[in-house]
Amino acid sequence: MERFDIAIIGTGPAGLEAAITAKVRNKTVLLLGNKGSSDKVSKAHTIQNYLGLPNVSGEDMSKAFLAHATSMGIEITEDKVNAVYSMGKYFAIQCHSGDYEASSVIVAAGMTTMKPFPGEMEFLGRGVSYCATCDAALYKGKTAIIIAYSAADEEEAEFLAERAQKVYYLPQYEYAGNLGGNIEVTCDVKPDSIAYTEGRAYLATDKDTYTADGIFILREQIAPSQLVPGLQMDGNHIGVDRSMATNIKGLFACGDITGAPYQYIKAAGEGNVAALSAVSYLNELKKATE
Amino acid sequence: MERFDIAIIGTGPAGLEAAITAKVRNKTVLLLGNKGSSDKVSKAHTIQNYLGLPNVSGEDMSKAFLAHATSMGIEITEDKVNAVYSMGKYFAIQCHSGDYEASSVIVAAGMTTMKPFPGEMEFLGRGVSYCATCDAALYKGKTAIIIAYSAADEEEAEFLAERAQKVYYLPQYEYAGNLGGNIEVTCDVKPDSIAYTEGRAYLATDKDTYTADGIFILREQIAPSQLVPGLQMDGNHIGVDRSMATNIKGLFACGDITGAPYQYIKAAGEGNVAALSAVSYLNELKKATE
Repeated sequence: MERFDIAIIGTGPAGLEAAITAKVRNKTVLLLGNKGSSDKVSKAHTIQNYLGLPNVSGEDMSKAFLAHATSMGIEITEDKVNAVYSMGKYFAIQCHSGDYEASSVIVAAGMTTMKPFPGEMEFLGRGVSYCATCDAALYKGKTAIIIAYSAADEEEAEFLAERAQKVYYLPQYEYAGNLGGNIEVTCDVKPDSIAYTEGRAYLATDKDTYTADGIFILREQIAPSQLVPGLQMDGNHIGVDRSMATNIKGLFACGDITGAPYQYIKAAGEGNVAALSAVSYLNELKKATE
Repeated sequence: MERFDIAIIGTGPAGLEAAITAKVRNKTVLLLGNKGSSDKVSKAHTIQNYLGLPNVSGEDMSKAFLAHATSMGIEITEDKVNAVYSMGKYFAIQCHSGDYEASSVIVAAGMTTMKPFPGEMEFLGRGVSYCATCDAALYKGKTAIIIAYSAADEEEAEFLAERAQKVYYLPQYEYAGNLGGNIEVTCDVKPDSIAYTEGRAYLATDKDTYTADGIFILREQIAPSQLVPGLQMDGNHIGVDRSMATNIKGLFACGDITGAPYQYIKAAGEGNVAALSAVSYLNELKKATE
């Protein structure tokens, strides 16, 4: 498997700046996220204080950022990250469409605004999962509930349904798909809480209670502490020092996920620092193995 | 005297970003520094990793930054800061052309590459001074040595010479001025060390030793610890936390002066954070006095 020098999770200002700085330093980069850059940026109204781009719309800024990255030969790999594991000298990055390896990782995944459901964290790993395609093999002849947040999740539901006996699909977005067969789609259902007992998962909602062998929550973002086991948090944010280092050697974080102020230029500045810290780490790593 | 909300020292990326962010938050800003932005920026070759401005020359970047600030009605006050004193609820800012007051201060003065001369710190305040115009009144009928670093210092020499009996002017730059009268200009003299004993200051150089009542060192920049008495340093840099706060309440720092990496986007990002931290401080201050 190709081992990248630096894997960057997130394509907002922090992730893109980290990518271009890593590229300037001749590092191989795996940039994971949406090709549309961050939603937050492109939906923003006029931004007045990104120095050098006066009075710019969120959409134009987003375009300028992506054009800059593209002009330097940086490509975005559109995939959702399920988990990052430190393996000592490298990281294993488990994504929905496959696995990757990188010597260092920069988490620039933005701010999670969603709170976990009551029971979600408690039953994560037994009854609750974030990746249907990863766990599909375990659901042969079984039943599952999917809480879905975007149309992209419909593909995951279909993949799971090929193995599972029955899939309950509860879209939390404007559903316009055509899922059918053993997939039962119910719109306008709000999940309340999760329980798991004697091998059965229960999802209480504002309407019925659903039960199945397991529950998949396909959020756009996973809580950082779940994404990277062992990661030290500072409240809701990833704990970092001024070099953007986390408590896990070789893993750095930048942008909104590291705390306020939630500002584009702050995020970009931190992306730069994170990338250069990752480069220093790679140099150390190289020296240590020589 | 008008009291500004925020005084910003330095017009590089950190200072300019701090100024535009403070302006967005409706604060009154005193921006002190050179109108040409920072020399380091405008003399830089191509910059590849300032996200949003791909492949830009230092000169174009500098122009873009200044145009951004100007478009928001920000003016640069061209003055050299001699010292910043915390007065409890406000700061007194002593400049070469006059004094200012501000409720909070952001130091974004860039990296000092110059080392003090042996003896300089020891005799600062008795025998050694950084501001000829400030101390001119004390030199009636006396003699002084000026170590000068830019053509702008010639005006200070003339002002001092109106009071002083004799001024030795040692330009450390390409001198093309026409100082005369009681000002003795000697080019190509390299200062070595400073001593002060029994009311006489001595400057040893690579040629002669000069003696006078006092020595003025007119550097472009003053060491931060001298600029702000009591400021806690972290090696050669100003010590800050992630909110860009220093050990002095209401005084913040950002950009190269707070440490590596010396990168434009990092400096700008920190300017943003420093400005928002200053705004928070001003809010606290207002609440405390209500």
